[in-house]
Amino acid sequence: MTSSSNVRTVFIVSDSTGVTAETFSNSVLSQFEQIKFELIRIPFIDSPEKAAATAQRINLCAQAQQQRPLVFSTLVNQDSVLKIREADCIFLDLFGTFVQNLEDALGIKSSHSVGRSHMGGSSKEYSNRIEAINFTLAHDDGQFIHGLKEADVILVGVSRCGKTPTSLYLAMQYAVKAANFPLIPEDFERGSLPATLHPYRHKLFGLSIQPSRLSEVRNERRPNSEYASLKQCRYEVAEAERLMRMENIPWLSTTTKSIEEISSKVLEDVGLNRRVF
Amino acid sequence: MTSSSNVRTVFIVSDSTGVTAETFSNSVLSQFEQIKFELIRIPFIDSPEKAAATAQRINLCAQAQQQRPLVFSTLVNQDSVLKIREADCIFLDLFGTFVQNLEDALGIKSSHSVGRSHMGGSSKEYSNRIEAINFTLAHDDGQFIHGLKEADVILVGVSRCGKTPTSLYLAMQYAVKAANFPLIPEDFERGSLPATLHPYRHKLFGLSIQPSRLSEVRNERRPNSEYASLKQCRYEVAEAERLMRMENIPWLSTTTKSIEEISSKVLEDVGLNRRVF
Repeated sequence: MTSSSNVRTVFIVSDSTGVTAETFSNSVLSQFEQIKFELIRIPFIDSPEKAAATAQRINLCAQAQQQRPLVFSTLVNQDSVLKIREADCIFLDLFGTFVQNLEDALGIKSSHSVGRSHMGGSSKEYSNRIEAINFTLAHDDGQFIHGLKEADVILVGVSRCGKTPTSLYLAMQYAVKAANFPLIPEDFERGSLPATLHPYRHKLFGLSIQPSRLSEVRNERRPNSEYASLKQCRYEVAEAERLMRMENIPWLSTTTKSIEEISSKVLEDVGLNRRVF
Repeated sequence: MTSSSNVRTVFIVSDSTGVTAETFSNSVLSQFEQIKFELIRIPFIDSPEKAAATAQRINLCAQAQQQRPLVFSTLVNQDSVLKIREADCIFLDLFGTFVQNLEDALGIKSSHSVGRSHMGGSSKEYSNRIEAINFTLAHDDGQFIHGLKEADVILVGVSRCGKTPTSLYLAMQYAVKAANFPLIPEDFERGSLPATLHPYRHKLFGLSIQPSRLSEVRNERRPNSEYASLKQCRYEVAEAERLMRMENIPWLSTTTKSIEEISSKVLEDVGLNRRVF
């Protein structure tokens, strides 16, 4: 087989899940638009033997494609790093590069211990995170209004504007207790926030969305319904935005944003500074 | 103020959410156990002006602490990078370092475009992810059994062993449709899987947990109940593990694992190779 210069295999090799490494690699690789990358994540390489087997797999790939694959590694163990580094590849040592830089800058040695990026199942932080997820599930879509006083933030907006995934992401990634509450035609007719929310005005954050996008999303769920019609979506979005402006609720449009971006903006705006899990 | 050498401020500066950068930084910093790090994430630095303001903030910190803070940057824009680099700090260019390495290795130039690490709200991948989250919410705790044939994986295990957070993480991070189904005393008395699950045996993955840990978790929800007693937890866990062995269901213990690790192991075991969001 001859080299196909615009497709390149990328191995993500990690002693843990490799999720951070893959997200990071995607971000770096997206800067090379002229090349199509095929990512293969190889998690839990926690022994030199597994590293040697991975090196073999990389060599086979290099041979078959007549082209050196890229390898992004977050391995900590130096014997394992060496095995992979010796394979026929372009080796990028995500972890070692910066540990080395930091050792130099701080003038101290690192501990070279493995798999410390995520918290295990017994720490306090972990319990907080699980508690936040449970809270968010119990307070999805206004279904359970007791306990709203415990919420860190309450997302409001029309049905299907992105409240649920954003709430769950906030809980999962930041251990934030995020409730969410729908704004519905009744609220617009009355022209005020649901009474339930009045005591928690300072915790409210609004999500909105382009009516055409909302109509698409609702049509997937209830095709050709009044609920999904562009007319209804235009009405609800205009009224929800008017209400949020009137009530001085900070809000943003989710239309072109990822769940990560929306969540980060929400935290910034409500002044929650949380560590990431 | 004199330098306090065992606490060090770390700025995470990103033109997007900074979540990947923070997770990555945590992993690198965890190698320096002798130092306590205080992380400050500064997201959405998307103009040289905002970068200049951030540089000022870094300088004030350096002055107050009489010590150069660490800065992990994933900024792409070169003018912005320059502003931060000129501040009084130890600058670690997460992004530029590897983009440069790749340019050298591949012999091509990168596009230097900003904020491409997460998908926006309109792509197909994004819809798949939202669809997976909705599926997982609808199929939590065996509450909705129609549609199980669409599931990519069905997690089984005793109540409170970690099925829900794992299912949600699988949906959120990998766009995997993850249902979950409880194993309850009735199933143990009958000595077989719930009949509903028989057609989907190949999609099942079991979660288990140490009885003492399970008892702790259940006691938080229903203190001093029979349900939370160590005796009951021991019984259910032993029976669930026996059932999973008998039915040849792959399973693992969640006790000392993070949601990330459990999810990654599940994917590996059921042979789902998914990209990370």
